[in-house]
Amino acid sequence: AAALMGGVAQAETSATAGVTVAQLVERAPIHWVSIAQIEKSLEGVPPMNVGFDIDDTVLYSSPGFYRGIQIYGNHFSSNPEFWQLMNNGWDAYSIPKEVGRELIAMHLRRHDHIYFITARAASQTETVTNLLQKTFNIPASEMHPVIFTGIRPGENTKTPWLSKLNIKLYYGDADSDIEAAQAVHGRGIRVLRASNSTYVPHPQAGALGEEVIVGSDH
Amino acid sequence: AAALMGGVAQAETSATAGVTVAQLVERAPIHWVSIAQIEKSLEGVPPMNVGFDIDDTVLYSSPGFYRGIQIYGNHFSSNPEFWQLMNNGWDAYSIPKEVGRELIAMHLRRHDHIYFITARAASQTETVTNLLQKTFNIPASEMHPVIFTGIRPGENTKTPWLSKLNIKLYYGDADSDIEAAQAVHGRGIRVLRASNSTYVPHPQAGALGEEVIVGSDH
Amino acid sequence: AAALMGGVAQAETSATAGVTVAQLVERAPIHWVSIAQIEKSLEGVPPMNVGFDIDDTVLYSSPGFYRGIQIYGNHFSSNPEFWQLMNNGWDAYSIPKEVGRELIAMHLRRHDHIYFITARAASQTETVTNLLQKTFNIPASEMHPVIFTGIRPGENTKTPWLSKLNIKLYYGDADSDIEAAQAVHGRGIRVLRASNSTYVPHPQAGALGEEVIVGSDH
Amino acid sequence: AAALMGGVAQAETSATAGVTVAQLVERAPIHWVSIAQIEKSLEGVPPMNVGFDIDDTVLYSSPGFYRGIQIYGNHFSSNPEFWQLMNNGWDAYSIPKEVGRELIAMHLRRHDHIYFITARAASQTETVTNLLQKTFNIPASEMHPVIFTGIRPGENTKTPWLSKLNIKLYYGDADSDIEAAQAVHGRGIRVLRASNSTYVPHPQAGALGEEVIVGSDH
Ligand SMILES: [Mg+2]
Ligand SMILES: [Mg+2]
Ligand SMILES: [Mg+2]
Ligand SMILES: [Mg+2]
Repeated sequence: AAALMGGVAQAETSATAGVTVAQLVERAPIHWVSIAQIEKSLEGVPPMNVGFDIDDTVLYSSPGFYRGIQIYGNHFSSNPEFWQLMNNGWDAYSIPKEVGRELIAMHLRRHDHIYFITARAASQTETVTNLLQKTFNIPASEMHPVIFTGIRPGENTKTPWLSKLNIKLYYGDADSDIEAAQAVHGRGIRVLRASNSTYVPHPQAGALGEEVIVGSDH
Repeated sequence: AAALMGGVAQAETSATAGVTVAQLVERAPIHWVSIAQIEKSLEGVPPMNVGFDIDDTVLYSSPGFYRGIQIYGNHFSSNPEFWQLMNNGWDAYSIPKEVGRELIAMHLRRHDHIYFITARAASQTETVTNLLQKTFNIPASEMHPVIFTGIRPGENTKTPWLSKLNIKLYYGDADSDIEAAQAVHGRGIRVLRASNSTYVPHPQAGALGEEVIVGSDH
Repeated sequence: AAALMGGVAQAETSATAGVTVAQLVERAPIHWVSIAQIEKSLEGVPPMNVGFDIDDTVLYSSPGFYRGIQIYGNHFSSNPEFWQLMNNGWDAYSIPKEVGRELIAMHLRRHDHIYFITARAASQTETVTNLLQKTFNIPASEMHPVIFTGIRPGENTKTPWLSKLNIKLYYGDADSDIEAAQAVHGRGIRVLRASNSTYVPHPQAGALGEEVIVGSDH
Repeated sequence: AAALMGGVAQAETSATAGVTVAQLVERAPIHWVSIAQIEKSLEGVPPMNVGFDIDDTVLYSSPGFYRGIQIYGNHFSSNPEFWQLMNNGWDAYSIPKEVGRELIAMHLRRHDHIYFITARAASQTETVTNLLQKTFNIPASEMHPVIFTGIRPGENTKTPWLSKLNIKLYYGDADSDIEAAQAVHGRGIRVLRASNSTYVPHPQAGALGEEVIVGSDH
């Protein structure tokens, strides 16, 4: 009873040695969507500006971040040396996500205008734009330079960009990605952060009432 | 890739002897909801008329229907003798569903007006109204007689009742329940038909884009 | 980390509004088997005596038990009137389980000798044997009368029968079914108790290290 | 019925828009285990030689392999230049798996002797041994040099090493890891290959009848 009301969990778990059928049937109350459903929901909508987060959304980039912590310690993210490396080559070790390939291909089919907006800090130079363009087969003429917002405590640095660029559909793995989209009365769609992502703690996908893409962990 | 687009299944199944992580992560693209979320979505909405299907929604009634097939054969549902028995006592063997208890309790808390609308054929007499009222602790003063619509091929017999009674929220396990709600531009919310229900084939819950209640199989 | 050690649960649950990939991947540490795998494991084994529990193993019999509680109250199971009714007709409302059909068919193919051993109390007469024989297409010549062990506090009433009948493979939904098999150094295989079974609390299937049959809830 | 026999899948999938309860309950017929259960199964067993595969077992090493394909093309794995890089630094971008941490810690507690056996080709020099020793806190005195078996078509290059080293318990993600353990009548335990691993196609974990560790994707 409690579970129906959203209370005590009746979940299949490794914590106990067995399972009940109620636990097998249990699912998190999430709005799951497929990319086909997203595309269908956009039928008849003229080309629009759409936005993507990068890390754990279109690229599994933990490799570079993991190396960064090993070399620069816990404060790596406030070290410009780290960002110069991360933004200028370490994405050679980032694994492109299939969900990224599929979403970008779908939006290119629709002739939408794609923007990548990341909370990575800007660095002197960057090769991320070029890597994303090549990796996801985005025509050079349609590739906008990646927007590096950086992080400022207490602020959502993506919201102003969604507003400025009139982005009404934004994909991301973090709560802040979804919150940014909701803040501009847009549609934030969640991509699952892979279980082996080093960016912990992992967010509760779907918890903000947003749509979550099935199978988007890889 | 295909799975992200809603194509080929990558599902955890007993058909093959093993599993991949992609299959473990896979979920059907369904809009799952908890009863707590439904209640929250109705905050501020004044008392309204709500409707419930009966069989496999608030009662697991397969026992009587199973006995009916044993005695009357495949055409039991067009035999008035069956309905006289089913509607006048055989629900003593029907198992009330927890999801039914929780939903009815929630709507009573809200002072909504509850109507039960079933495709069972009307019979000379019926004790179903009384059984539902007692089983779900509905105050006698608030119990409306069950509406028996029967089935007419090619028609959705529930739609006219949702319209007539201005029911904008209707719970059911069958596609026809959800379609009826959608036909009157209302909110159809799916309850899962238990896997041991004898009413086959089982519907694809969530396939009409409707919300599906987690854990509502029992 | 804790979850890998069998500690804190990382489970997909309706208790929280969202989900992480670790939760989606999580499974109870259970030894799941299919009937095909069971059959294969018996290749080359000559015909043997096998046993089946009845309630929630081959029959979903909650309808009669539910009615029993309504009429006789909480102590229905110590009332001979209840058992006379339950064992002489109320199984007309019990739903045969597919897993029961498949297992019995498999063991008949193997020419095993099938025994039904139930903790139901014996009654003056019984029609359960006849119902099982007809429902599961067991040749009359191969049908053994159901063994009604009754319940005696502090004892496992099935163990002596498994021993006496040299039953080395026993199927059941309750912990006591599996424990009886293990007590005679036999193979206890778990069948899932349906989530709408009125026999609560539901056991943790797999918790005794036994094999659990996939999809055996129905 | 077919699903119970291990035939047609009744699986929760993104291929169809909805779901049935049978699909929600469905599980692959796999023998899942937790690390706690493995440890318990070894109680009373004196210190023994145990083996671990490396890639996708204790390290998520796709980053280096992905880079290798980008630079050297599809035949990267027969190019000594690739292996010299992969084995001498590119694991700086490999993400250690929690399952690796937990298993190694458990075996160190037991004073077992740990061997790493990989199908990576040997290179002139290697820093993998050092990286594994530091990453998993293996006392230097107990660290055995990694064994690089390379790949020879038509052979399982790990089997001779399990035999030579009297390894009766071997952990790996690939079919060949489990087959090697089974070939020496040992215990092969499967670790899940992460869904974002670039080593495709992904194996069907559990398909060889082996135990599979829950939550071992990360
Ligand atoms: Mg991100
Ligand atoms: Mg119904
Ligand atoms: Mg039972
Ligand atoms: Mg491997």
